[in-house]
Amino acid sequence: MSKFWSPFVKDLVPYVPGEQPKLSKLVKLNTNENPYGPSPKAIAAMQAELNDSLRLYPDPNGERLKQAVADYYGVSTAQVFVGNGSDEVLAHAFHGLFQHGKPLLFPDVTYSFYPVYCGLYGIEFEALPLDERFQIRVQDYARPNGGIIFPNPNAPTGCLLGLAAIEQLLQANPDSVVLVDEAYIDFGGESAIALVDRYPNLLVSQTLSKSRSLAGLRVGLAVGHPDLIEALERIKNSFNSYPLDRLAIVGAAAAFEDRAWFEQTRQAVIASREEVVSGLQALGFEVLPSAANFVFARHPQRDAAELAAGLREQGVIVRHFKQARISQFLRITIGAPEQNQALLEALHGL
Amino acid sequence: MSKFWSPFVKDLVPYVPGEQPKLSKLVKLNTNENPYGPSPKAIAAMQAELNDSLRLYPDPNGERLKQAVADYYGVSTAQVFVGNGSDEVLAHAFHGLFQHGKPLLFPDVTYSFYPVYCGLYGIEFEALPLDERFQIRVQDYARPNGGIIFPNPNAPTGCLLGLAAIEQLLQANPDSVVLVDEAYIDFGGESAIALVDRYPNLLVSQTLSKSRSLAGLRVGLAVGHPDLIEALERIKNSFNSYPLDRLAIVGAAAAFEDRAWFEQTRQAVIASREEVVSGLQALGFEVLPSAANFVFARHPQRDAAELAAGLREQGVIVRHFKQARISQFLRITIGAPEQNQALLEALHGL
Repeated sequence: MSKFWSPFVKDLVPYVPGEQPKLSKLVKLNTNENPYGPSPKAIAAMQAELNDSLRLYPDPNGERLKQAVADYYGVSTAQVFVGNGSDEVLAHAFHGLFQHGKPLLFPDVTYSFYPVYCGLYGIEFEALPLDERFQIRVQDYARPNGGIIFPNPNAPTGCLLGLAAIEQLLQANPDSVVLVDEAYIDFGGESAIALVDRYPNLLVSQTLSKSRSLAGLRVGLAVGHPDLIEALERIKNSFNSYPLDRLAIVGAAAAFEDRAWFEQTRQAVIASREEVVSGLQALGFEVLPSAANFVFARHPQRDAAELAAGLREQGVIVRHFKQARISQFLRITIGAPEQNQALLEALHGL
Repeated sequence: MSKFWSPFVKDLVPYVPGEQPKLSKLVKLNTNENPYGPSPKAIAAMQAELNDSLRLYPDPNGERLKQAVADYYGVSTAQVFVGNGSDEVLAHAFHGLFQHGKPLLFPDVTYSFYPVYCGLYGIEFEALPLDERFQIRVQDYARPNGGIIFPNPNAPTGCLLGLAAIEQLLQANPDSVVLVDEAYIDFGGESAIALVDRYPNLLVSQTLSKSRSLAGLRVGLAVGHPDLIEALERIKNSFNSYPLDRLAIVGAAAAFEDRAWFEQTRQAVIASREEVVSGLQALGFEVLPSAANFVFARHPQRDAAELAAGLREQGVIVRHFKQARISQFLRITIGAPEQNQALLEALHGL
């Protein structure tokens, strides 16, 4: 604490990202990265941009990327916002769309950055309990609110909410923005972007860090009604004119354009996930139904923190949350087949 | 305006960056980019990182870059903050260090993003007039304030404030953060980073977009007392865990390490500036003394807006601000020798 800080700073409880160990020998299954590299066409596009043109500012609007996203989803570029990772996109949405003097609603078990954003922007929130099977109960969200947000599939559970249930939420809350955070949607669900033309209160965010294998490049996006996008643009243009660098714009656009690579790698991850689920079940784990590139699992007889520590001793890192209701679960990223095998073998030996 | 917007959004007046034209034939002297490319070692470092490792998140703390900056300036990494361009660094500083219920002070003619940040974070400000020679009057800043910020050299004037005057400001305001925004310092001044060990209220920001030729990569930094850096880190970690991508971290670090390239290119820009000043004076322009990679000039008989339009017709873009006191000035970036020659020839023909 310092007298120089703006008063709210002392009360901030920052988000803690998963560890990024510097040792490369580890089997790193803790931050939901993709086991496969990005599209070779994305690498080639960045290669072509890696030259003296870096002395020049990028396009502040990232039009090339907006167009690639718009083409992919069949929307207009006025319905697309792009930013420095979906965390930045979410931050702008909290700031620009959720300050209404009524509580923001989100699940009690969810992406742990949401309450952090609330602290940053002075937004009150209510965390509504998932049901006993860790599913969102849509009817609980029919209460006064200044907005609704949830990941779909949810994190860290991996559980999916169907589009029909999302439409229920949208219809029950016509005066609130419903933000569907689709970081993991490509691994098992249908994007709510299909609904944006019908619901002016729907904003959908996505990231290129998971299904597009570009966590290291920091690109996220949102799709919704142009009025919602305008709020994000006004915040962005009052914060940082050029959030995406020249390499990120062309790399991310090329990643969206390479549908074959995207399909091939996401299907490989989905197939591996089903193998990991079977392997964990064979070891006695209960695994929540996952539509993501990770699974959330607990063992009825084994303490999760001890399992995580035991795995780490064998060079396998998974994520464990010391948090009510989920402290006996492990969140395990789906890795490459040999990594998944190493995980299962390490668990077998514990 | 939309009912979904947080109420303050409708009052935002976003920053307008200089135009980034898509035509490449233009002589682009409007956004203070460096005419020389980045260090070949920076390109090589990014080249080495442009591979499948992009599937992995970057180091959220950008330690490799913090270390390079710390080594360059002889400070510790706890005194260094890094972000997605100095605009993001400034935004976090406004949010985390300037919300004190007293007005922030800055010059009336200055970087036009400052009042925008004030709008974004609800910070009251007083714009204190520069003197008739467009210099900061240090004594004017001895009044109640919640912080002080100015670019040094100032933008868009190019005028430098010496370190002795900055020390006066720091001593007269021991309870306020004084943020010296050194975007252009390498083209003609001494960095106030030399003072950070003696003044806990001093924060210095810099960018890699100008003297390091990496505007397209989006990297900025701040140096100051660890308490000030901690405020920025708390904001950053409540906003976006990974603001710098893997390529930006290694490219920016390598740019700081390549002192020879830095010296050679900045000396070339400084030499060109002196030639441009002479050329403009020969054409009858009054040119403010510049310590930056641009000059701020007016012609006693010619309207600045007409001159800018006339230059544009000849394919030369400079920046003109429709703003009190400076509406008869042009801000002209120092380009490569052939660009500067094209500018002077175009002006000669007008």
